[in-house]
Amino acid sequence: MKKADIGLIGLAVMGENLVLNMESHGYTVAVYNRSSDKTKNFTAGRGSGKNIIGTYSLEELVDSLAVPKRVMLMVKAGSPVDTVIDQLKPLLNKGDIVIDGGNSHFADTMRRTEELEKDGLLFIGTGVSGGEEGALKGPSIMPGGSPEAWPHVKELFQTIAAKVEDGTPCCQWVGANGAGHFVKTVHNGIEYGDMQLISEAYFIMKHALGLSAEELHDTFARWNEGDLDSYLIEITRDIFSKYDRDTGEPMVELILDTAGQKGTGKWTSQTALDLGVATPTITEAVFARCISAIKDERTAAEQVLSGPDERYTGDTHTFIDAIQQALYASKVCSYAQGFALLREASREYGWELDYGDIALMWRGGCIIRARFLEDIKEAFAADPEVKNLLLTPYFKNIIEQSQTSWRLVVATAAQLGLPVPAFSSALNYYDSYRRGRLPANLLQAQRDYFGAHTYQRVDRPGTFHTEWLTPGPHVTSNPVE
Amino acid sequence: MKKADIGLIGLAVMGENLVLNMESHGYTVAVYNRSSDKTKNFTAGRGSGKNIIGTYSLEELVDSLAVPKRVMLMVKAGSPVDTVIDQLKPLLNKGDIVIDGGNSHFADTMRRTEELEKDGLLFIGTGVSGGEEGALKGPSIMPGGSPEAWPHVKELFQTIAAKVEDGTPCCQWVGANGAGHFVKTVHNGIEYGDMQLISEAYFIMKHALGLSAEELHDTFARWNEGDLDSYLIEITRDIFSKYDRDTGEPMVELILDTAGQKGTGKWTSQTALDLGVATPTITEAVFARCISAIKDERTAAEQVLSGPDERYTGDTHTFIDAIQQALYASKVCSYAQGFALLREASREYGWELDYGDIALMWRGGCIIRARFLEDIKEAFAADPEVKNLLLTPYFKNIIEQSQTSWRLVVATAAQLGLPVPAFSSALNYYDSYRRGRLPANLLQAQRDYFGAHTYQRVDRPGTFHTEWLTPGPHVTSNPVE
Repeated sequence: MKKADIGLIGLAVMGENLVLNMESHGYTVAVYNRSSDKTKNFTAGRGSGKNIIGTYSLEELVDSLAVPKRVMLMVKAGSPVDTVIDQLKPLLNKGDIVIDGGNSHFADTMRRTEELEKDGLLFIGTGVSGGEEGALKGPSIMPGGSPEAWPHVKELFQTIAAKVEDGTPCCQWVGANGAGHFVKTVHNGIEYGDMQLISEAYFIMKHALGLSAEELHDTFARWNEGDLDSYLIEITRDIFSKYDRDTGEPMVELILDTAGQKGTGKWTSQTALDLGVATPTITEAVFARCISAIKDERTAAEQVLSGPDERYTGDTHTFIDAIQQALYASKVCSYAQGFALLREASREYGWELDYGDIALMWRGGCIIRARFLEDIKEAFAADPEVKNLLLTPYFKNIIEQSQTSWRLVVATAAQLGLPVPAFSSALNYYDSYRRGRLPANLLQAQRDYFGAHTYQRVDRPGTFHTEWLTPGPHVTSNPVE
Repeated sequence: MKKADIGLIGLAVMGENLVLNMESHGYTVAVYNRSSDKTKNFTAGRGSGKNIIGTYSLEELVDSLAVPKRVMLMVKAGSPVDTVIDQLKPLLNKGDIVIDGGNSHFADTMRRTEELEKDGLLFIGTGVSGGEEGALKGPSIMPGGSPEAWPHVKELFQTIAAKVEDGTPCCQWVGANGAGHFVKTVHNGIEYGDMQLISEAYFIMKHALGLSAEELHDTFARWNEGDLDSYLIEITRDIFSKYDRDTGEPMVELILDTAGQKGTGKWTSQTALDLGVATPTITEAVFARCISAIKDERTAAEQVLSGPDERYTGDTHTFIDAIQQALYASKVCSYAQGFALLREASREYGWELDYGDIALMWRGGCIIRARFLEDIKEAFAADPEVKNLLLTPYFKNIIEQSQTSWRLVVATAAQLGLPVPAFSSALNYYDSYRRGRLPANLLQAQRDYFGAHTYQRVDRPGTFHTEWLTPGPHVTSNPVE
């Protein structure tokens, strides 16, 4: 029997669809699932009549593979990945490649790369984004890990990946050890931000302007023709066109407003905090999910806590346009935060990330795919070392053109009592970032006052401490060591 | 020679001051420092002629103690604590007590409690807040760890702690294992929030109203007579009264506007993310420090990125009053977030925290000490199970009275281009929390659309999935499992 090109472990929907995607491009795929029923159902069902080999033990799976053996895990992130790797290790030989395609924490991927390389094996931790459909028809693939493994998976990965208009695959080598999973994590953090920003735009239009589902559909349809053209705006447009067959109500209005947050969104914020990089918009999106989850508390609070009348009294169409501008400007700030985080992580972990490549990988296939990622790619191509996306001419101009509308929307939402945590945090990020002088001087004075934490001065080098309790108006800056 | 009541390791300023505080209350304290010079200097200097015993080895330190031996560590958090504990362990006997008074991560304290209890020793991890002066004259002390240890340190800790007006000490047993250090961590997160909120108030008054240092001094002095009466407002008032002896300039304006963030502030946000509790105001305060730290980038960005004119054209005094209201309302929201986090952590870790006790511990001695903590204590006394501080009658009324001003300030700052991330996030927290319905229904629809993540409905129980690509306007909710 012909040896398989790759083995895949874990036949949930994403795993199955990846297998079918690979097979449709001429690859023979061996599959294994812990519960053998899944394997049977898949090979007899969606996988039947194809070059897909069902196997019923890891030994059988590994035996069925051509050398170097490539085994891809699509199992739940966390300890299940370690368990499978431990079982695989004795079955593999020097130079064989283990690939983790789940949403693993990049620190785990760093550890696993090191451990497997010690045993002479190669490891790839790769982000795979695009949902079920992407997995089947072409996902965005973000691989990192052992650089020696890349030549052995490059063709396969780039073949099954999404392509942008000119045919370039949305898959490039990201970097060593945890780089691929980290980039996927930040992708998901940005996805959280995008979804929250869209939700806030919807909430304002619904409450302040009283737009119907149909009007919301039309609005998102129009937005999708412009700068906001993206997968998430497109599906939002479509969602507002769907009505519940039973009740005739707009489907979205019948859905419970509680969303979970676990894993990658949270990790983006936690890593940002560790690295000292401000990602307030992404983090507000995570917290918005936390607040959404305490539905009972909110329902009770609504009976107790008051707010203003939420209707906007100005011109509806002008305000819709302003919301579009606010959404776009906020989105730019959210991406600026995400790329700033990538930049700091690249420095910290020595990954030498290529930001243009990353924008390209996100340009198609994945959930955040959008036209404007082309602009990001070009901005980084023009200036690979730029410290923040906001400083690139293209995005600087966008913010300049939209900031009056953006400020109007944030100010109006505050006055009308409509929560816009992501819009607000993005604007505050912009207004903080563009200031040479922030009020942290007062904060440093406070810290020196109560804890002798010392401070620096604007007018001379050195570190200083002041005895703030000195009587009289005058105090001295005392140089410290 | 009389045996010492307690041994203290680590003679940095906080350690020295705690020793002097203990000694001044009649306790005999043995001290040890890794570099013996510090011990010599201290016992010959500030500690001379007092019941303070200098020791020059851990053996000597432990030998000098009465039984059960109590050894308090005031060393740098992290591995130094483990190192000293490892060195102490063989010198101690069953029932002896190790106390860690540094800013340790509560997870480390949980681990250390378990490890030391396994060896028959007792462990206390305690928060100590109040800066240098507090340590000397009466800090806030938040002890957790081995409950059996508490009776052996209670009198000492409560004697040296700060006292509120009626003489109650700002020190109570917090809870098992990491509870004390966790409460200290949240204290510090709230401290970050308070400091950032004050800094934003200062920034608005400086830029939008052009207030001088003298006017700022007068404003904070007036605020400190009202609801905002607190240590941080008091020292802010004093800071604005101080002028540099060399240049004659207001001292605070000569201080560099870059603040560090490491440790407890960050941990508060990271733990909140882990526990799924929204703490946006505290987290924005951490991120504000991150942005403050990239001074070079900001200075460059200022040359590139534009913003509106930042002057306020309305009545100055009315706006100052509005800022006061905004600061107070934001502060209430920040504390509401902190206490919500304590509540969830208490549930998660089984600590059975007493929120009234915690408010009392923070009422005096520590950096966030403030009159309004008395109101928080009373609110929890009236309803210990209340799910959020915002729902208590006292704080609900405060928000209701201040929200018009609060909204004006946030809206004006957005229009004028003044960054107020903490003010804004607090308002958005309030406006999110008080809503029975948030836009997360759209988010759930998106997740179900691209990832078949399923959703719940508002009108019937169960879990559902929709085939969103169904042609035509009508779709079905398909029950899942």
